Amino acid sequence: MGPGPVNAHPRVLRAMSADLLGQFDPEMTGYMNQVMALYRPIFGTQNQWTMLIDGTARAGIEAALVSLTAPGDRVLVVNFGRFGLLLTEILGRIGAVIETVEAPWGETVPLEAIAEAIARVQPKVVATIHGDTSTTMAQPLDGLGDLCRAAGALLYVDATATIGGMEIASDRWGADIVTGGLQKCLGGPSGSAPITISDAAAAHISARRHVERGIRRDDIRDGNGVRIGSNYFDLAMIMDYWSEKRLNHHTEATSMLYAARECARVMLGEGLAARYARHAAAGRAMTAGLRAMGLTVYGDDRYRMTNVTGVLIPEGVDGERVRTAMREHFEIEIGSAFGPLQGRIWRIGAMGYNAAKHKVLLTLSALEACLRSEGFSLPAGEAVTAAIATWDA
Amino acid sequence: MGPGPVNAHPRVLRAMSADLLGQFDPEMTGYMNQVMALYRPIFGTQNQWTMLIDGTARAGIEAALVSLTAPGDRVLVVNFGRFGLLLTEILGRIGAVIETVEAPWGETVPLEAIAEAIARVQPKVVATIHGDTSTTMAQPLDGLGDLCRAAGALLYVDATATIGGMEIASDRWGADIVTGGLQKCLGGPSGSAPITISDAAAAHISARRHVERGIRRDDIRDGNGVRIGSNYFDLAMIMDYWSEKRLNHHTEATSMLYAARECARVMLGEGLAARYARHAAAGRAMTAGLRAMGLTVYGDDRYRMTNVTGVLIPEGVDGERVRTAMREHFEIEIGSAFGPLQGRIWRIGAMGYNAAKHKVLLTLSALEACLRSEGFSLPAGEAVTAAIATWDA
Repeated sequence: MGPGPVNAHPRVLRAMSADLLGQFDPEMTGYMNQVMALYRPIFGTQNQWTMLIDGTARAGIEAALVSLTAPGDRVLVVNFGRFGLLLTEILGRIGAVIETVEAPWGETVPLEAIAEAIARVQPKVVATIHGDTSTTMAQPLDGLGDLCRAAGALLYVDATATIGGMEIASDRWGADIVTGGLQKCLGGPSGSAPITISDAAAAHISARRHVERGIRRDDIRDGNGVRIGSNYFDLAMIMDYWSEKRLNHHTEATSMLYAARECARVMLGEGLAARYARHAAAGRAMTAGLRAMGLTVYGDDRYRMTNVTGVLIPEGVDGERVRTAMREHFEIEIGSAFGPLQGRIWRIGAMGYNAAKHKVLLTLSALEACLRSEGFSLPAGEAVTAAIATWDA
Repeated sequence: MGPGPVNAHPRVLRAMSADLLGQFDPEMTGYMNQVMALYRPIFGTQNQWTMLIDGTARAGIEAALVSLTAPGDRVLVVNFGRFGLLLTEILGRIGAVIETVEAPWGETVPLEAIAEAIARVQPKVVATIHGDTSTTMAQPLDGLGDLCRAAGALLYVDATATIGGMEIASDRWGADIVTGGLQKCLGGPSGSAPITISDAAAAHISARRHVERGIRRDDIRDGNGVRIGSNYFDLAMIMDYWSEKRLNHHTEATSMLYAARECARVMLGEGLAARYARHAAAGRAMTAGLRAMGLTVYGDDRYRMTNVTGVLIPEGVDGERVRTAMREHFEIEIGSAFGPLQGRIWRIGAMGYNAAKHKVLLTLSALEACLRSEGFSLPAGEAVTAAIATWDA
């Protein structure tokens, strides 16, 4: 019950035991096409280029940024937590000129502040996190795409911590690239990063295409743009691999593709609305239960993510001892925190397969027991009562 | 029966269905330590830093090259096939100054030629493929590390196509970084890249360490070297993640780690010598069978890889029709070829779980049937007889 990775759905685990296929076997390329179709509704998009990057969620972020950005390009980063900082770290290595528009940890950045920063910076790319698990805040994104388009900038959104649990509305947001990971609300293992790319971004990236000498073909021409700074993360070549051209690039990670496909099938079977409502109920119940224990929930209530809840470690309680007791007595893992929040909050997730009433209630019961054994005084049993009452609210 | 990816070992497929673990759960970090220990004998090394990169084999190559090389560094690439070209493509994007020492496709580069090139180029890094599946040639590497060390260069070897099937002797070769993949002779799925790093290379890389702002700690200091050009492939941070410091970087791909661990356990259970002998027998039998059919095996016999055999498509035979018939009638996939060999040879693998007597014999039988139905005249039944006779030779 941490902020991810979390338990995978049993169907996803089983899917990975299927026999492998050759990478250009028609059955395999059929599965690749299915994955493209299955992830479009999950990303809230009609984008043709909706596929997987073979690596963890962080690989998806770097593929997006290195393919969008050339050295010297101005990039505006919307920064409200550790993962906003990660965007600046990745962009710094690409050689981008980075400007940021910031909010204190625990808050989000107002759209007006982003608009002012865009006017000031004149960026080629605006990059933001959707939900930053380090602070448990979700940045509102409606309207941001319009601002970017008016300024001639492309918009990148990292949705690793929200995809599968909160609505991803790539087209409505006007986002040009959105990336995610399986290991949080999609209920799969880390190691595959779903990505969607708008036609505008695809055109921008294809203009930077540079096909490897060993596999050049007459029907695929190099672009005039600056060559992308990474071969592995070259989205132009990866799009050619996922297209009907099937230009060889990496060898698709077959078992992880099976996992990504099954994550999407489980999600679409449940239904998007039902799934988001389930995560919202879990977050609401967790919050009510923590407050009923007398604990203080972290961050601005209006913008808190539904699938991970930060809670202040009470004074006099050793946060790491409680986490260890949770794991050793109850086999339940809750998260510590990064940077300025380290030692100040726990982060308790309810993501994907774990966003279930019984798991929320068991976690609250276990936390209550561990806090009592640390000598923390609380109203016994109130947390579970409050959580049950709130689940269906 | 292509040049990889191939069928995975059933134990490896089953290992991926195991429940996930939190990335800092002691059970999980215990498995990470086991993986480090299990891959040392497979790489033929005592290197402390022996671990996994979360991505396909190509991710391992890029992680090695971007961490060893800074823009402007001179790098000598030993180039005898498509994957030598891939090294130059990756290095070009890093901004390295690339020089090559070449052999025609189907041959390898003599050690004396490499020595002359090192003297001429004075490289900081020498990079080579071990076995290049595009040409089926294996570059001899004994003595190359000594040449590099004498010239003050670090040696990188890509062993993707040989690891698990031919001896990898990282320490004896004097290689500073060797990388591989699971999807060929290790008998696993694509998506995890084993890597080993010498102490000298680790020191070089750690001098380029740059810890992300969101997770800096007092006990981990940045180095003075040029920052590594990729965050995802920053081996300094990845070593810190796999070390007892457990500095957060990516979220380890748990299911792929289970797969990599099981690949190694299967291999060490069989025994290194037995495993290499099995691949050698398979390659010998495949070669004998193809020749008994009257076909011409491609490349210099002295340096051919044991686990993939190139064979010329006979005149008047449509290579793609034969491949399609093999797949549609027999469910057996054999490989086409790249670049100058496209349409000229097939590449027939016998890798990992597929390096078995019955699979070699079934493949030869199927190929014989498909060639006969294309009107190619051959001595019926001789291939299998020759292969059986040669298996135990």
